[in-house]
Amino acid sequence: MSVSTPAVITRPSQRAANQLRDIRLTRHYTKHAEGSVLVEFGDTKVICTASVEASVPRFLKGTGQGWVTAEYGMLPRSTGSRMDREAARGKQGGRTLEIQRLIGRSLRAALDMNLLGENTIKLDCDVIQADGGTRTASITGACVALYDAVGVMLERKLIKQNPIKQLIGSVSVGVYKGMPVLDLDYAEDSTAETDMNVVMNDAGRFIEVQGTAEEGDFDFGQLQQMMELAQQGIEQLIATQREALGLS
Amino acid sequence: MSVSTPAVITRPSQRAANQLRDIRLTRHYTKHAEGSVLVEFGDTKVICTASVEASVPRFLKGTGQGWVTAEYGMLPRSTGSRMDREAARGKQGGRTLEIQRLIGRSLRAALDMNLLGENTIKLDCDVIQADGGTRTASITGACVALYDAVGVMLERKLIKQNPIKQLIGSVSVGVYKGMPVLDLDYAEDSTAETDMNVVMNDAGRFIEVQGTAEEGDFDFGQLQQMMELAQQGIEQLIATQREALGLS
Amino acid sequence: MSVSTPAVITRPSQRAANQLRDIRLTRHYTKHAEGSVLVEFGDTKVICTASVEASVPRFLKGTGQGWVTAEYGMLPRSTGSRMDREAARGKQGGRTLEIQRLIGRSLRAALDMNLLGENTIKLDCDVIQADGGTRTASITGACVALYDAVGVMLERKLIKQNPIKQLIGSVSVGVYKGMPVLDLDYAEDSTAETDMNVVMNDAGRFIEVQGTAEEGDFDFGQLQQMMELAQQGIEQLIATQREALGLS
Amino acid sequence: MSVSTPAVITRPSQRAANQLRDIRLTRHYTKHAEGSVLVEFGDTKVICTASVEASVPRFLKGTGQGWVTAEYGMLPRSTGSRMDREAARGKQGGRTLEIQRLIGRSLRAALDMNLLGENTIKLDCDVIQADGGTRTASITGACVALYDAVGVMLERKLIKQNPIKQLIGSVSVGVYKGMPVLDLDYAEDSTAETDMNVVMNDAGRFIEVQGTAEEGDFDFGQLQQMMELAQQGIEQLIATQREALGLS
Amino acid sequence: MSVSTPAVITRPSQRAANQLRDIRLTRHYTKHAEGSVLVEFGDTKVICTASVEASVPRFLKGTGQGWVTAEYGMLPRSTGSRMDREAARGKQGGRTLEIQRLIGRSLRAALDMNLLGENTIKLDCDVIQADGGTRTASITGACVALYDAVGVMLERKLIKQNPIKQLIGSVSVGVYKGMPVLDLDYAEDSTAETDMNVVMNDAGRFIEVQGTAEEGDFDFGQLQQMMELAQQGIEQLIATQREALGLS
Amino acid sequence: MSVSTPAVITRPSQRAANQLRDIRLTRHYTKHAEGSVLVEFGDTKVICTASVEASVPRFLKGTGQGWVTAEYGMLPRSTGSRMDREAARGKQGGRTLEIQRLIGRSLRAALDMNLLGENTIKLDCDVIQADGGTRTASITGACVALYDAVGVMLERKLIKQNPIKQLIGSVSVGVYKGMPVLDLDYAEDSTAETDMNVVMNDAGRFIEVQGTAEEGDFDFGQLQQMMELAQQGIEQLIATQREALGLS
Repeated sequence: MSVSTPAVITRPSQRAANQLRDIRLTRHYTKHAEGSVLVEFGDTKVICTASVEASVPRFLKGTGQGWVTAEYGMLPRSTGSRMDREAARGKQGGRTLEIQRLIGRSLRAALDMNLLGENTIKLDCDVIQADGGTRTASITGACVALYDAVGVMLERKLIKQNPIKQLIGSVSVGVYKGMPVLDLDYAEDSTAETDMNVVMNDAGRFIEVQGTAEEGDFDFGQLQQMMELAQQGIEQLIATQREALGLS
Repeated sequence: MSVSTPAVITRPSQRAANQLRDIRLTRHYTKHAEGSVLVEFGDTKVICTASVEASVPRFLKGTGQGWVTAEYGMLPRSTGSRMDREAARGKQGGRTLEIQRLIGRSLRAALDMNLLGENTIKLDCDVIQADGGTRTASITGACVALYDAVGVMLERKLIKQNPIKQLIGSVSVGVYKGMPVLDLDYAEDSTAETDMNVVMNDAGRFIEVQGTAEEGDFDFGQLQQMMELAQQGIEQLIATQREALGLS
Repeated sequence: MSVSTPAVITRPSQRAANQLRDIRLTRHYTKHAEGSVLVEFGDTKVICTASVEASVPRFLKGTGQGWVTAEYGMLPRSTGSRMDREAARGKQGGRTLEIQRLIGRSLRAALDMNLLGENTIKLDCDVIQADGGTRTASITGACVALYDAVGVMLERKLIKQNPIKQLIGSVSVGVYKGMPVLDLDYAEDSTAETDMNVVMNDAGRFIEVQGTAEEGDFDFGQLQQMMELAQQGIEQLIATQREALGLS
Repeated sequence: MSVSTPAVITRPSQRAANQLRDIRLTRHYTKHAEGSVLVEFGDTKVICTASVEASVPRFLKGTGQGWVTAEYGMLPRSTGSRMDREAARGKQGGRTLEIQRLIGRSLRAALDMNLLGENTIKLDCDVIQADGGTRTASITGACVALYDAVGVMLERKLIKQNPIKQLIGSVSVGVYKGMPVLDLDYAEDSTAETDMNVVMNDAGRFIEVQGTAEEGDFDFGQLQQMMELAQQGIEQLIATQREALGLS
Repeated sequence: MSVSTPAVITRPSQRAANQLRDIRLTRHYTKHAEGSVLVEFGDTKVICTASVEASVPRFLKGTGQGWVTAEYGMLPRSTGSRMDREAARGKQGGRTLEIQRLIGRSLRAALDMNLLGENTIKLDCDVIQADGGTRTASITGACVALYDAVGVMLERKLIKQNPIKQLIGSVSVGVYKGMPVLDLDYAEDSTAETDMNVVMNDAGRFIEVQGTAEEGDFDFGQLQQMMELAQQGIEQLIATQREALGLS
Repeated sequence: MSVSTPAVITRPSQRAANQLRDIRLTRHYTKHAEGSVLVEFGDTKVICTASVEASVPRFLKGTGQGWVTAEYGMLPRSTGSRMDREAARGKQGGRTLEIQRLIGRSLRAALDMNLLGENTIKLDCDVIQADGGTRTASITGACVALYDAVGVMLERKLIKQNPIKQLIGSVSVGVYKGMPVLDLDYAEDSTAETDMNVVMNDAGRFIEVQGTAEEGDFDFGQLQQMMELAQQGIEQLIATQREALGLS
């Protein structure tokens, strides 16, 4: 399962190039939401809730289709130095909007919107401690919360058929000192030349790929190596989701 | 330690009229903040962080005095039905502003601003699960986070002398079906005739009193009974703070 | 009617500890509103209007109940140094929101919402000159405007039965140089150790109590003394309201 | 002093075509501002204050020149039906911005900015009762407030020489049922075909002319007639200003 | 066609006092809008689009009448030094609101709102290069876009009868070094003593007159001279509109 | 240069799978900006300006480094149905922020920030007509505007050495009915299963890759085919940039 990498480079985290951080998924983390999951990718901790609402946005009214949307936030001191509270500043920043759009798009791929009926599931991903990879942890955790919320909907007879099509997982990959590595923590992320967030389904196919050469650039060979690392990582993440959900 | 109340009334929570919920204070709850505490009043759970900044608001520049300020938020699904995210709506609501002003005023009473020097401590109280009494839990938890942040400042030699003057605790009291009761949970709070938030110091003296007759009104006798319950409750809360902080 | 206080303290206003400022209530102050009152507590002057609207907020639609809500503002130069205009800054500050929430809650206690029917009365309290106690003057004046607006509604047959349950008055009390005093003006308020706003009905019972130890703290004995002063003051204020309204 | 108009048309206000409403200017209306004037054009009542600040906007720093700026607002129930409060809506409307820009431009014409030095005078015009012509009343009243504020500045030795160059007055004119009329009240304004606001100095020369054909259009002859009415009206307004200010 | 002016003054643009800049009207400039015109007044270039919507604002619902409204914007670098983007600042400035209100009012005069039926035409005027007179160019160009949009509505049978009552043109006039001049460019506008924007219909009658003495003042004689220049200029502008529209 | 694709699929645009639309780059499109380019990808038209400012954001002050930032907007009627104007709505949407962040990041790769010195180049990309691919056209056009602005800086001696490191181009690729295609227009983009925006430098290496499976998902083979198409397309785009800039 390893990818050949130059032996000499050591990651700040001491992990192997293709090694995820400790992943934990705690279901039923808070009591009110239909789905509520604490997801931990090492020291990155995000509360993901899924809330069911019996209505849809205007553009879907009368279509018989449902919707999944997401919001993302960071507690002001989830980070090393305190960030301004977005509610106090009076607007969400560009990074926040970008991330919540990504989470929403990614998780919409999990459901058959016709089977969901005219219901909306709102995913809230709130970072309580950040150490890199908050958006990939959010997607991975929100998928489990979504699954639980769908379970509640079935139980409450709000829907007749299970709309879940597939599980969705996400991880970051990057090039750190020339070496492709999996699941970057903050120390690695902030010095990586390239940073890529990958979203895949449980069949190992791509839903989203977003890569940035923060410094320098990358070629197709590096892209291929990163994609392979991502594929391995997401396979493990989806296995962890299955285990948390008690799926065989 | 009991207050005479009509024997026949039972609280929804089955607690005695003068009984607090289970109180828990978990220090060092997240890793980045100088002070970080998870406070639990029964099912009400609030993350309180204290962040140190080496500057003061404009009106204090050059005075040699420090400042303590607070911000408060609720995760959208900390409540029974999902609330709009304030960052997405583009402003903090009146209730939020009112609560964070109360937290700030209350905790400023804990410190000698001259000994704090031209530093600001920002308290963030973020409710991850709400079941009544979020503002009183926030004040009680934030006091411990503040204490820890001051400890870090002393350690880092940012200040020479300990500016802590006193510990501050807070609890709600109310009149439920005619019976004065301590520490209302959501079920009690939403049906109480009168709801009062009391903030006290460790000498049992008042810092803030805020009471509202949601339905009906109250007289001086009831006010007195509520104040006595509050005094007992806050005494216990401050004992719990001392224990959590390892103070004799 | 006097409260024993140390003989040596003199209030900046030269008033006795239990003495209100000159109170004036001018009805029909402006011509458009259903109720329009200029209230003066000494140099504090507030225009209070009550506007009737034949609808209710969404959460009351179909319940048969009415609503009372309030907004508060200060003219930019109602104060010693000019404040920014909130409309120009693009938002109402926390103090404004806190005060208008207090006014609304207090005056809702004056009416039987079932008798009001699905109508809303909007109270606007605009301070044209500030000298301490603007929120208590606002509540006291708005009650008279509300009364007049209800009269117009009865006249216009918008309601059948008078929904007024009770008159509401409000005054501040505080501890100035150790002495409990009534109805603080700006000079007193800004140096008082404790400042308390009390709202009562015409039966002398409490609707709201909001007290802050700006400097130091206070004990139950002081609280009791302040409550007694407030009770005396509000009794006089409600007598003044009755007189203005031509009630026996 | 009359202008020939068709004898048969009667204004709703019963006034002659060239007749102003009752004009009143009450100086020292509120106590804090350097200049404070209640201006009344009939039932239109505006509080105009002038506040002195010892600084200038960034674009004037270091130029030795001063600045005059204006803000305008209407109390929510200054009008027949209640308007939303701009502070609560979170922004000033286009009409408000247009009016306050007009007031500022007009009154800047009153002063020699070099003699004002690097000081700013902020004019606040707050309508407490509206009956047409609020912007022209505001300009006329603000001029007197400005004059008083300059007097305070001279007294306090903030400036050495009087920067007042000229008095400024303003009035509306319009075409009502084909007849040019002076100083329209609300009933006339809302049915006039053409509405024009004119600002002039004490030499009878134009500072601003803003005319709109709300319905239809107008020709040069009508423009000329309206200008003549405006000239007469403003001459009287400036006489009233002089009288109020005790100028010979 | 000339107006007597002092022979010695030369305009920065070298134009005669009564000479327009080169005027160009390019229809069908972009492909999506029902009307789309690039208007050029010399170096001032504005894209004017007219968009048809099958609804009206709330206050017109059920009246059978239509509406015309306008929005105005400047590209950040349409000017000599870059302006902040209004969308990024989070609000439109006072000048923008004032201009778009003027454009809307002016073009509403072009149509019979009853014949328009319950439809709205939205005019967007976006300045891509500014050199003075952007608002007058916008009105002149938007009139042609409006005409084209009405043509599309007739073609699509959205309306039965042509609602166009008259063509509308607009130009600025001013007093430059004592000389009344027509159609000021930026160099002239920024040094003119008086600046006036005039809107007229194709019968040579006034729709709007907005004049400001930026420096100094002006008298009735100058006003008359400016009006005459405006009348000549707008006559030519409307001839250009006719030619562009292929009207005889 | 062709990629093997199923022969039977025809693109709505009739173009070959690997065929760009007509590309045009018009320099000096408007007169004020240091760089001003109209870029056309078929019917997609974007005005890109580059504005030079002699300062940097706070986080770069004193570092000797420069900055490049971007803003993006669409004229309201650049699209088939009119979009709300972001300035009027009071905020930029998530899509806008996402795109302008992408443009900024991409073009920062073009420059050596040390050679730029403490200067900022602001890129404004304003879409006047949209037909798919507005962000890739913006990046491609803004690179030429940036180049021109650097030329002006060298001419004006604002910098000593040319900071341009490389040219940057961008194009979209997608999977349309199973066939990988280059440079999607609106008709193709709105029905494509996968949509990918690729940014590359003039050495054919990746700067950014952003791919979304709007419907379904994609595998590594498809990713590879899309990357090859992008590489071919961007090579041609950069050749067109060179030609426009007169580079050999």
